[in-house]
Amino acid sequence: MVTVPELTHTQFLLASSLDTTTRLLGTMVVFNMADLKLAPKEGDSFDTSQAYAEGLDKQDSLAAKREEFAINGEELIYVDGNSLGRLPKRTMPVIQNRVEREWGEKLIRSWGSCGWYETSTRVGGKIAQMVGARSNEVIACDSTSVNLFKLILAALALRPGRTKIVTDTLNFPSDIYVIEGCINLLGNRHALQLVPSHDNDLTVDMETLEAAVDDTTALVLLSHVVFKSGFMYDGRAVTELAHKAGALVLWDLSHAAGAVPVALNEWNADFAVGCGYKYLNGGPGATAFLYVREDLQDQCSSPIWGWFGQSRPFDFATSYTPAKGMARFLAGSPPLLQLAAVEAGVDVIKEVGMEALRAKSLQLSEYLIKLADERLSPLGYSVGTPRDPAQRGSHSRTTSASGSRRSIPRLQRCGTWSSGSVERWRRSCTSSTLSTDLPLLDPTAIVQRRGQCGNSMILVASGRFGS
Amino acid sequence: MVTVPELTHTQFLLASSLDTTTRLLGTMVVFNMADLKLAPKEGDSFDTSQAYAEGLDKQDSLAAKREEFAINGEELIYVDGNSLGRLPKRTMPVIQNRVEREWGEKLIRSWGSCGWYETSTRVGGKIAQMVGARSNEVIACDSTSVNLFKLILAALALRPGRTKIVTDTLNFPSDIYVIEGCINLLGNRHALQLVPSHDNDLTVDMETLEAAVDDTTALVLLSHVVFKSGFMYDGRAVTELAHKAGALVLWDLSHAAGAVPVALNEWNADFAVGCGYKYLNGGPGATAFLYVREDLQDQCSSPIWGWFGQSRPFDFATSYTPAKGMARFLAGSPPLLQLAAVEAGVDVIKEVGMEALRAKSLQLSEYLIKLADERLSPLGYSVGTPRDPAQRGSHSRTTSASGSRRSIPRLQRCGTWSSGSVERWRRSCTSSTLSTDLPLLDPTAIVQRRGQCGNSMILVASGRFGS
Repeated sequence: MVTVPELTHTQFLLASSLDTTTRLLGTMVVFNMADLKLAPKEGDSFDTSQAYAEGLDKQDSLAAKREEFAINGEELIYVDGNSLGRLPKRTMPVIQNRVEREWGEKLIRSWGSCGWYETSTRVGGKIAQMVGARSNEVIACDSTSVNLFKLILAALALRPGRTKIVTDTLNFPSDIYVIEGCINLLGNRHALQLVPSHDNDLTVDMETLEAAVDDTTALVLLSHVVFKSGFMYDGRAVTELAHKAGALVLWDLSHAAGAVPVALNEWNADFAVGCGYKYLNGGPGATAFLYVREDLQDQCSSPIWGWFGQSRPFDFATSYTPAKGMARFLAGSPPLLQLAAVEAGVDVIKEVGMEALRAKSLQLSEYLIKLADERLSPLGYSVGTPRDPAQRGSHSRTTSASGSRRSIPRLQRCGTWSSGSVERWRRSCTSSTLSTDLPLLDPTAIVQRRGQCGNSMILVASGRFGS
Repeated sequence: MVTVPELTHTQFLLASSLDTTTRLLGTMVVFNMADLKLAPKEGDSFDTSQAYAEGLDKQDSLAAKREEFAINGEELIYVDGNSLGRLPKRTMPVIQNRVEREWGEKLIRSWGSCGWYETSTRVGGKIAQMVGARSNEVIACDSTSVNLFKLILAALALRPGRTKIVTDTLNFPSDIYVIEGCINLLGNRHALQLVPSHDNDLTVDMETLEAAVDDTTALVLLSHVVFKSGFMYDGRAVTELAHKAGALVLWDLSHAAGAVPVALNEWNADFAVGCGYKYLNGGPGATAFLYVREDLQDQCSSPIWGWFGQSRPFDFATSYTPAKGMARFLAGSPPLLQLAAVEAGVDVIKEVGMEALRAKSLQLSEYLIKLADERLSPLGYSVGTPRDPAQRGSHSRTTSASGSRRSIPRLQRCGTWSSGSVERWRRSCTSSTLSTDLPLLDPTAIVQRRGQCGNSMILVASGRFGS
């Protein structure tokens, strides 16, 4: 039986207004447990002592990477790095240079002399290295939603006789919204098939997926790592499965790019999109990216025939000719201030390399899962993430049985609670070390609830724990 | 006869690479004429002396506004404020706060506590004040191209039986590209009609426009101020004309918002878009905006059913319900770093007020036109902008007869030239004063050419003029 420290002075700042403008995105837990004493459990190979964690950190070649991030005070432990990645220290100087020198002093000369024109392509080329693509297959532009929209319509146009789009119930809801919008726009000639999970939103069975993909399927659109459980698809197997049926594949890499190795070229993937503000550390509302396999690019058309997608925009011709290659998927001017942050964030990851990052990520996850097994299971919580690392991205969740909230009495007082809650924890592995963050992390406090209103809630405990 | 000073030490930095990544956007002239002596012409009411300009500046309540902009050295005269507006001094601190404090320290708590959720709406509300709309009719999001795409499709869906879209040959080319893309996407059931100019790309005749708009017309899409000549439409008259025929109107305000008073509500305009990086001083690739008249909002649908356009995104429902009002036109997460710059830029204009700004703008334009009449007409150049201020936005151009380039020999050496050139000058009136900028401005140097390759070119003369 594990003793749960009593929360003695905890303030939960519930940014929980129920009106439309202040609804909450994702999950966040930030708390201060400087006074929390976690005693090591004798006889366990897993050990929650500071010394044990420090020992592991000494073997960790990426431990020093924490210094690259703006982390203000050790009292704040941020475990929601896959909702908004932390700020790299190098980002502000990069933005300041773009604003003060390139915009303020050089003005529009910077389009040429400071590489503004190439920004979408250059940043895309760096992201390409992280997702196993050629540098001419990825561009950074627009939002994930807009990029999904462009590529769904481009894909459907390549399969004019086919009427089915396949995704799963674990996918991020807005991916489904964008698909629905495309179907509506094309006159409801297509149908969406949602493949269900048979194990409580943990995974999707490959056979069930395979049965859904048939010769009427135009497109299979899936998140490589799903947000609900951290489940990670076998990218190569799913791509092969779709291609065998004559369908195209579009991967959403929002929870994968910068978090796990992705091998788009090896998989022979057709299309992909992803966001810049999670594992790429590109800041709030960061510019997203999109990928189109090289041999498909000139067969495709973006539905948005924009200024930067024109073959020769400075001819000022009054008729559109799509640019060669990826540029045709650009729409308006690239958001150059926002892209400065994305580029700085991507550079941090690029220097680490995805293999080293994945190894570190798995170590952090295993440590966290052991913490949960030890401390949360007696309280009725269980790990709701695949145990097999090959099936797991880099974020985890816990699931709770109804009533388990009794064990954490102070948490109950901070808002409305309902049963059937989904709790998750998340962390930003590039900026985390075991000895600094995880031993101090009390899993009982890492709780995200879906309140009675159906909204997610942010829990911020800014006080201190005492035993 | 006017003596044109010889250019003695002029470097033209032609950012003129012809490959796709370095093509040039818009026009720019930056030059240094600290040594240029412009003697006043006796007997003229118009006077190019410093004393004359200083006298006018003393009566100008906005002269001090120049101090609000980052202007590094009086030697650089920037007359391309409608391609990329200057950097307001307040912008960098606003961005720095968003990056270092809101993102770096508060992390995702800022969605609630720092107003991140309301950013598109809040910035839109400020822009609404500049374009004569209600605050709940404008949102800041995406690029102009993406917003045009959304509203064209929304408009066409409201006029299902009609098959014609009307615009003019003076419109910005990418507006036409986006229309063409929409027509293609909808299966080529619509036709685009381009209303021509009958006076060398100066204006469009209202009768010609009226003749083009008939009972097959779904949408009239025009730039309120056209980029080619600075011609400004009568917004109310055109809107009435379109509505009389049962058509909808979509105004592109990219060269109007923040430059001239716009009265969308008074005109009873249906839709509008505009960019943030020109007169709104929002920086390179600034977030754009869109307007939908209040009573139309809930009748319309955006084709991109994105994350932020969903009614209750944090219910994580697996089916899309559009948000009420303008929010349904949002797609992905708002680009919060980029929007910080837009908001700072908009605040500068908002504090000035559009009436005062228009008065100042007209004074600057009249002064510049007089300079051109006096100094350029003997060289074969003429003002290619409507003389009537009611028909003119806030940028101007000159047109030249073939061969007139002989008069400015040094300019010939800087690149390839062709006849039929279009030359413009432009200025950012909020950051300009007469005594500092315009008397030193030699119109003969303000030349933008369309080279033999068909590309625009940027001319940057960083040397000095001598007499």
